[in-house]
Amino acid sequence: MSAKMDWIAVDWGTSNLRVWGIAADGSVIFERRSDKGMGKLQRDQFAGVLMELLADTGQEGQPTEVLVCGMAGARQGWMEAPYLEAPTDLRDLAAGAVYPAMPDTRYRVAILPGVCQRGGNDNVMRGEETQLLGLAATYTDFAGVVCMPGTHSKWAVLDGTRIERFSTAMTGELFEVLRTQSVLRHSLQGDLDGPARAEGFEAGAMAGLKNPGQLLGRLFEIRAGSLLSDRQPDWCAGFLSGLLIGAEIGANRQLIGTAPVPLIGSPALCALYAQVLEWAGAKGESVDATTIVLAGLKAARDRTARSELI
Amino acid sequence: MSAKMDWIAVDWGTSNLRVWGIAADGSVIFERRSDKGMGKLQRDQFAGVLMELLADTGQEGQPTEVLVCGMAGARQGWMEAPYLEAPTDLRDLAAGAVYPAMPDTRYRVAILPGVCQRGGNDNVMRGEETQLLGLAATYTDFAGVVCMPGTHSKWAVLDGTRIERFSTAMTGELFEVLRTQSVLRHSLQGDLDGPARAEGFEAGAMAGLKNPGQLLGRLFEIRAGSLLSDRQPDWCAGFLSGLLIGAEIGANRQLIGTAPVPLIGSPALCALYAQVLEWAGAKGESVDATTIVLAGLKAARDRTARSELI
Repeated sequence: MSAKMDWIAVDWGTSNLRVWGIAADGSVIFERRSDKGMGKLQRDQFAGVLMELLADTGQEGQPTEVLVCGMAGARQGWMEAPYLEAPTDLRDLAAGAVYPAMPDTRYRVAILPGVCQRGGNDNVMRGEETQLLGLAATYTDFAGVVCMPGTHSKWAVLDGTRIERFSTAMTGELFEVLRTQSVLRHSLQGDLDGPARAEGFEAGAMAGLKNPGQLLGRLFEIRAGSLLSDRQPDWCAGFLSGLLIGAEIGANRQLIGTAPVPLIGSPALCALYAQVLEWAGAKGESVDATTIVLAGLKAARDRTARSELI
Repeated sequence: MSAKMDWIAVDWGTSNLRVWGIAADGSVIFERRSDKGMGKLQRDQFAGVLMELLADTGQEGQPTEVLVCGMAGARQGWMEAPYLEAPTDLRDLAAGAVYPAMPDTRYRVAILPGVCQRGGNDNVMRGEETQLLGLAATYTDFAGVVCMPGTHSKWAVLDGTRIERFSTAMTGELFEVLRTQSVLRHSLQGDLDGPARAEGFEAGAMAGLKNPGQLLGRLFEIRAGSLLSDRQPDWCAGFLSGLLIGAEIGANRQLIGTAPVPLIGSPALCALYAQVLEWAGAKGESVDATTIVLAGLKAARDRTARSELI
């Protein structure tokens, strides 16, 4: 560690925790990860977990700022950071930060709020709003639809730093509960990543894109296909994944238009979404999620620093 | 038991088993139930479970015919009865029956086949085909769409005793896995049958009917609604149920047309489907499921008796 740590960026999700030490020039000095996500912690454990992860990071001198985004700010997290309400300017995230007490006075922690949406289409996000701010800070003239694939995929309409509206598709979670808990599990045991997965994925995606409304009625074809047509687990897993992603993208087809859709998420998942977007006659562009969340935390920090809230 | 038992009707599903003793005039002499469904049994246990349930039923004289429909004929059941393939005439069910050996020679058992569909929209049913035959035998001039709500709802296009095609919606199962296994479970704990359930059901059904393709994108509103709008578990359960049934019926809206749709299933569930059909500008007519399955078994038996297969 040659460069001096200026501040600390934290992305604290439901399942995982990532921490970065940032130098004054914005470069990452160190990165640490933990599986101690919000979902596994009691309120009084957050400070200790963070301190443990920051041990021996060379902190010295003035207290170091720690800026946190994600589920740590949920009601059942470290300290609740009340949602901003969409439509809203994401540059206001900093002004909504909350400041949990830290037993270790070498650090001063701020937790950014999430964004909610009310009025007949209730929705919430925590963590994605910081990625969206990062996207807006990186591509300063971007206006359009952003897709964040994952357990709960988010689709947001962004205009510069302003989030107009958003929705959530439970695509990733539905894949998991159907794979492990439903009658489809009988067709999804064994090697799910075999050579027939790509073929199943394309068949499923085409079905989902063609008619997203038929999702409920086509899931069972996976079970029937393994009983009647000797479909193997890899094909079935591909079909299920493709059907869900196809239905998700098909349902958002009008919103998407023709401009490229930034995709923020794991590279493997973003590649699948980009493929289905292409089949839909649209275009996806994968954006590195780590770069973007760091850009978002930095943009929020610039705001907090300017407004001298920390 | 005054009337003499002529034959025995059996509906052997995945979860439950029902047995009826039938007199020569078609009246039901006795009914017995067990929770020893196919899903809980090994192949060599079926005969014993049936004999146990038939103990002291007054069998005497010539061996009694036992006609079975449902999952007992599945590959993992008592004895596989290969599917008939749709489109097909359901009067041919009897000709496809299989005859497992019975240690107790007072009974001769025949298991009816299910119906499958191939060619790009693979599907299977076991049990519902006998209900459809019963419907055709009861309403001899019926032609149209039949809905059988349940764990796996079936929609079939029937023309007399001919089944043209069918689909399966995993509506009931999806409700259960989302209620118990997904993030929505946090919003679905407590009293699910409170006064707000009806309001939630209507809101969900309207959303599902309006745009079945938005199902994936609206499920998460349940979680957001309990976080933001203080939606209680009864409202949330109603919304989830309504959204799923609304999406199922909305996806089949073209197929339904304006003629009344026979609904075969539990009375409570059929009432919900009838309500949503009405909101969709259509009409459902609940049909007693027990009467219909008995009519179907009787119609199939008349065929087996005529063709002297038993």
